Order: sequence, then structure tokens, then C-alpha cells
Amino acid sequence: MRPSLGFYVTYTLSLCLGLLCLLFVSCWSSLWRGGFSWTGSPLEFNWHPVLMVSGLVVLHGNAALVYRVPFTWRQRKQTWKLVHAGLMLVGFILSVLGLYVVFDYHRGLNLTHLYSLHSWVGICTVAVFALQWILGLAGFLFPCSPLCFRSNLKPVHVCVGKAILILSLISCVSGITEKLQLVNGSSGEPYSSLPVEGKFANFLGLLIVSFGLVVLGILSKDNWQRPETDGEAIHVNKTLSRSAFLHLH
Amino acid sequence: MRPSLGFYVTYTLSLCLGLLCLLFVSCWSSLWRGGFSWTGSPLEFNWHPVLMVSGLVVLHGNAALVYRVPFTWRQRKQTWKLVHAGLMLVGFILSVLGLYVVFDYHRGLNLTHLYSLHSWVGICTVAVFALQWILGLAGFLFPCSPLCFRSNLKPVHVCVGKAILILSLISCVSGITEKLQLVNGSSGEPYSSLPVEGKFANFLGLLIVSFGLVVLGILSKDNWQRPETDGEAIHVNKTLSRSAFLHLH
Repeated sequence: MRPSLGFYVTYTLSLCLGLLCLLFVSCWSSLWRGGFSWTGSPLEFNWHPVLMVSGLVVLHGNAALVYRVPFTWRQRKQTWKLVHAGLMLVGFILSVLGLYVVFDYHRGLNLTHLYSLHSWVGICTVAVFALQWILGLAGFLFPCSPLCFRSNLKPVHVCVGKAILILSLISCVSGITEKLQLVNGSSGEPYSSLPVEGKFANFLGLLIVSFGLVVLGILSKDNWQRPETDGEAIHVNKTLSRSAFLHLH
Repeated sequence: MRPSLGFYVTYTLSLCLGLLCLLFVSCWSSLWRGGFSWTGSPLEFNWHPVLMVSGLVVLHGNAALVYRVPFTWRQRKQTWKLVHAGLMLVGFILSVLGLYVVFDYHRGLNLTHLYSLHSWVGICTVAVFALQWILGLAGFLFPCSPLCFRSNLKPVHVCVGKAILILSLISCVSGITEKLQLVNGSSGEPYSSLPVEGKFANFLGLLIVSFGLVVLGILSKDNWQRPETDGEAIHVNKTLSRSAFLHLH
């Protein structure tokens, strides 16, 4: 199977959008929200958007795309399973750190934890991410996992992976909305007059959504998938072929 | 192809979640936000969430699932194309009405239009919805549309349809977040103390997300698709069958 030009264009777009997301979220925290600080300062909060966008969106999205990159197709799938799991683990750790800083910030200022819709969706996202990683490890990396468990888990793993990315997009956009409303007017102009910070953070939201949709678009293209050569994949292909044959006759 | 029990369970779940979304959003507007009114009253705004959740989420999601319902498989696809397009049109009209009421409300109170991230994502969603409907009509319902345009449009139409649903979920959750922050404490207790309204609207947000994810889950299951019998579908099946054959040999 030859990698298509369409894939390379779309993949490059996803990489550019991912980098822009990281750049914009870091600039927002550092230029308009006062920069970063460790435990004990109100500036600790500013790590939260950076860690969440990096872990839940950009790293998670890139880890999901690992198998689609054509130069990996000539190498053993096991190697890229480890890369996929490793990137996901880093993404998960960043998101847990992102949760830690927001809980610590709330504790420091005596603010209520987990009251907003953003926090409800966000905590669900990280919980599902944890479960998905553990099940993925058990199913696809433990050599002793039974083949039937592995083949039943695969479509669920793919589907839940996409759901986590969608939940991450919802969490990030609602988080930016919440933050902009909470700090409304704190730097002089109200959000409704659309100051530079407002425009910038809104644009960050659009970048995050665009990145997520491009990644989901790549994942939805069946002919951009890694050509399967493992035993379990041949079984799936046999079933597919039989179903297409039955359709025609 | 026999419809599976798994489909019926998941489809029933989507119907229940859709109905709960409509119930919850109507209760939120009527019980906590003062009910509904037409042009000229601040209560006009309360139509906005109801119209958007009904049009962009519940009707859009159900229209997307029309071809998956097994009892429709014995009938002509053309009939169900008309039902699909009709439901989508009603959903689109409701979402345009939802935009109208919010613009009219802003005009009445001299508020700025389109400043928030929620409004940016929301307006993009409705614009893409309009484009998708027009292209769908031109490609799949106009008898004179060329077969090559139709077969190239189909995967794009499916992909953009899913993207519109994801954008709708993001718009709705960010809209609920924005509204809860804007009316924070207006009914006595602040949002951070999680009054009944806060819990109720947060739960509405989770229902909307769950509905969207269940619909996207159903759409992602290839073996729950309507068995294709039209000429254009046989062409696609032939290509699939050839590709599966090449995988195996």
C-alpha cells in the first residue's frame, strides 16, 4: 500500500495545529495570566491549561496517529505499540499533573473543588483515559493476554480513544470559556468588548477544536490505516472479505 | 443481515438520552431561568438553549441514525433519504431560530454580539450545517447529480456530519458553562456552592455529551450499517472486496 499525498498534507496540518495549540496556550498563561509558579502561588493555576492541552489533546492526538505514519509500517508493530503506549502515558501523567495544580490552587485559595460542568467533564475524561490505558496495557502489551480478549478489545479501544479525544475537546473549550468569564474585566476591559486576550483565547479554542477534528478525520480514513500483517488482523480481514462477498452474491 | 440485540439496546439508549436532553433543557429554561417569552423580553433568550439542543443535537443525531434502524432496510432508500434530509432541515431551522432569538435578545439589551468562544464555535457549527445540507441536497437528492460527484461526496458527507455533531456538543457544553457563569449567584446561591440549578444544568451537559457519544458510537459500527443494494453502493463494495482480497494474498 502506497502512502497518499492526502495523508501527508493532513498529517502535516495536524502537526502544525498541535504546535500552534501548545504555543497559544503557553502564551495565554504567560502573557495575559501572569506566568507560571509552583505550589503556594495563585499563578500555579496557569499550569492547568498548558498541561491539559499538552496531555489530553496534543499528545493524546499524536499518540493516536502513530500507526498511521507510513514510515512506521516497515517496522515491527510491537515497537510502535510501545511508542503509542509511552506517548499516551506521558499524556496521562501531564493531565494528572494538570488536575493536581488545579486542586492545589483551589485548596490554597479555599475555593470549592469540582463544582462546574467543565470540571465534571474534565474529571470524567481523565478517569476514562486511565481506564483505557490500563486496559490497553493488559490487552495489547501483556504477552499472556488471550487472543479473543485482544480482538474483542480492539474495536472498543479504538472507539473509546476517539471518545476521549472528543471529551478532551469539550473539556478544553468549556475550560477556556469558564476562565474567560471568571477573569472577565480583571485586566481592564470586559470580555464582551473582545480585548486582545479574549480574541487570543477564543482563537486558541478554535485551534484546539480544529486539531481534534483533523486527528479524528485522519483516524476515520480506513485506507490510511497501517496494513495489517499480524495473525489477529488477518482474521479480521477474512471476516471483512467474506462479508463483502456475501453483499455481492 | 440480521439486526443485532446490541443495536436495539444502544439505539434505545440514544432515544432515552435524547428525550432526557429535551426534558432537562426545557426544565432548566422554565423552572430556573424564568420561562419563555417572545420578542422584546429578556426571557426571549431562554428559547436559545432549548432550540439549540433540540435542533443541533437531538434532531441532528436522530437524523444521522435514520439509515441504521433495521425496519427501514426493507423500504426504498430514496424514502429514507427524504426523511433524513427533512429531519436535518427541521434541525437546521430550529438552530437558525435559536440564533435569531439570541441576536434579538442581545439587540434588545444592547449587548455585544459574537464575542465569546461559545458563540464563535456555535456560529461555525450552524454555518457548516448549512453547507452540509445544501451539498447533501445537491449530491444525493437531485436526480441529475453525477455519480462520481455522489460517490466522492459520500465519505465527506459522513465525516462532516460527525464533525457537526462534535461541534454541537462543544457549543452546547460551552454555552451551558457560559450561562451558568453569567447568571452566577443571580438566584441567591453562587454556582460554586453547587445549588440545585448548578447540579441540574451540569447534569444536562453530561446528558448532551452522553447522547452525542452514543450516536457517534452507533455510527462508527460498520456492521450496523444499512445493507447497500443501490448501484453506487455495489461499486463501493466491489472496491472493498478487492482490497480485502489483496490484503490476504
